[in-house]
Amino acid sequence: MIYSVQVKVMPLKNLLDPQGKAVMGGLQNLGLNNVTDVRIGKHIDLQIEADNEEAAKAIADEAAKKLLANAVMEMYEIQIG
Amino acid sequence: MIYSVQVKVMPLKNLLDPQGKAVMGGLQNLGLNNVTDVRIGKHIDLQIEADNEEAAKAIADEAAKKLLANAVMEMYEIQIG
Repeated sequence: MIYSVQVKVMPLKNLLDPQGKAVMGGLQNLGLNNVTDVRIGKHIDLQIEADNEEAAKAIADEAAKKLLANAVMEMYEIQIG
Repeated sequence: MIYSVQVKVMPLKNLLDPQGKAVMGGLQNLGLNNVTDVRIGKHIDLQIEADNEEAAKAIADEAAKKLLANAVMEMYEIQIG
């Protein structure tokens, strides 16, 4: 069966996020002053062939650890469906 | 009140996603052959000061339309909390 697995990769909370800071500046230039903070990460949709949800999640976890996320600077969350 | 609003920006389904294709190649080189498709987008966390959820959502929608997403190539979804 094919499972759709979402991996969210975000910069760690205690690290600077220069891309987010730049976007916040852009939003303020557009007059959107109510936005007080912006953080930008990646959203990765994986289609995984596996026998069950647990197996699909394990494969996504391995993919995130080995390639999708850099544990030094980023955290990730895995969600099925 | 400060609301945490998530904006997910993904390449449109009928467009090629070269970044996703490259990552899929990388995963296959690592032996993760069960991954049959990869699509990569952005995940943006906004902290928005607003009176209520509706107002926060409207600001996020304006931000997405004006800056965060390129409607020609990308779709976005907004989620609160």
